[in-house]
Amino acid sequence: MYTLYDFLPSGNGYKIRLLLSQLDLPYRYVEKDILNGETQTEEFLKLNANGRIPLLQLENEECLAESNAILMYLAENTPFLPEDRLTKARVLQWLFFEQYSHEPNIAVVRFWTTHGGPTVAQKAQLDAKLAAGYSALSVMEKQLQKTDFLIGSSYTVADIALYAYTHVAHEGGFDLSEYPAVSSWLQRIKSQPKHTLITDEK
Amino acid sequence: MYTLYDFLPSGNGYKIRLLLSQLDLPYRYVEKDILNGETQTEEFLKLNANGRIPLLQLENEECLAESNAILMYLAENTPFLPEDRLTKARVLQWLFFEQYSHEPNIAVVRFWTTHGGPTVAQKAQLDAKLAAGYSALSVMEKQLQKTDFLIGSSYTVADIALYAYTHVAHEGGFDLSEYPAVSSWLQRIKSQPKHTLITDEK
Repeated sequence: MYTLYDFLPSGNGYKIRLLLSQLDLPYRYVEKDILNGETQTEEFLKLNANGRIPLLQLENEECLAESNAILMYLAENTPFLPEDRLTKARVLQWLFFEQYSHEPNIAVVRFWTTHGGPTVAQKAQLDAKLAAGYSALSVMEKQLQKTDFLIGSSYTVADIALYAYTHVAHEGGFDLSEYPAVSSWLQRIKSQPKHTLITDEK
Repeated sequence: MYTLYDFLPSGNGYKIRLLLSQLDLPYRYVEKDILNGETQTEEFLKLNANGRIPLLQLENEECLAESNAILMYLAENTPFLPEDRLTKARVLQWLFFEQYSHEPNIAVVRFWTTHGGPTVAQKAQLDAKLAAGYSALSVMEKQLQKTDFLIGSSYTVADIALYAYTHVAHEGGFDLSEYPAVSSWLQRIKSQPKHTLITDEK
């Protein structure tokens, strides 16, 4: 059975919990409070030298880090990841877009806002992060005006990865009212079979 | 034949140029000067809504963005990407690590430094970026003390992705003298067959 080291409010962790639920895969859940340094202990750093959750431990005890690498691992040979070479690369394009252009803006502003509000140093970066976050939403909007899901007509791990922080973007103050295709897509994702919520405890 | 839209000083672009060289794949090179807004034109945004290089255009005219997604696409079914499911996920773990924990620190500080030095706003972020960059180098050092290449004994696209900005980290002021395993690995990468330099014009 898999073990998932995770932190409940984490959107990166939620990606994995959602996919595990939709794949009907049982797992052991181990909460690591990132706010109390629980991913920086000597013991945890032996499992992931980068000191981050989510971390998936396999039956053979090997560990896999990076939420989107874990998604790709779990989705292989399932309907959540098409086999065609270009389509698979297109899924990866969205996953790298998520970690570079979306998460560092939308997730980070949400984290600042929900953990006591931005500090003075963070405030200096806030306008740039809001603008970059809205740019990322515009890239998604353009695609979702053309297709129901990010890579076409089927629900894949690209949707799971982008859904994780887009559906809680309002917690960071992002207003999605000018992104109607993104808003419809959020509802479409929520209505997928075996959908779970970010707040659902294992 | 592939067309690569790229900008010569870009480490993200260099990843693709290096792999294309090592795969012996011919391509047409189109320079887009990111400093002059050439990736923000209406024409370019039709090719990549996210307005970034590198961008690979396939023979069928479809375009693929995100340097590490392009690496995975080109490397499929070649010795640069192992077929084993867990090893492939491990390559992806390094690629996502690169885009989230390495590039935004090491590449960004290099860009600031080589383009007129950090501005006042950038200076406020410099210490945090230097610290995060050194953390990323430490994660690499730990792995490279154990194995010759990032995922074991063979050279893969994980090495290409991390080499791109690590080998020019000194241009951003990073001192690699306390990272001997990283330094040896840089030499090992440089001695691979058909290696090209970031400054090599097509």
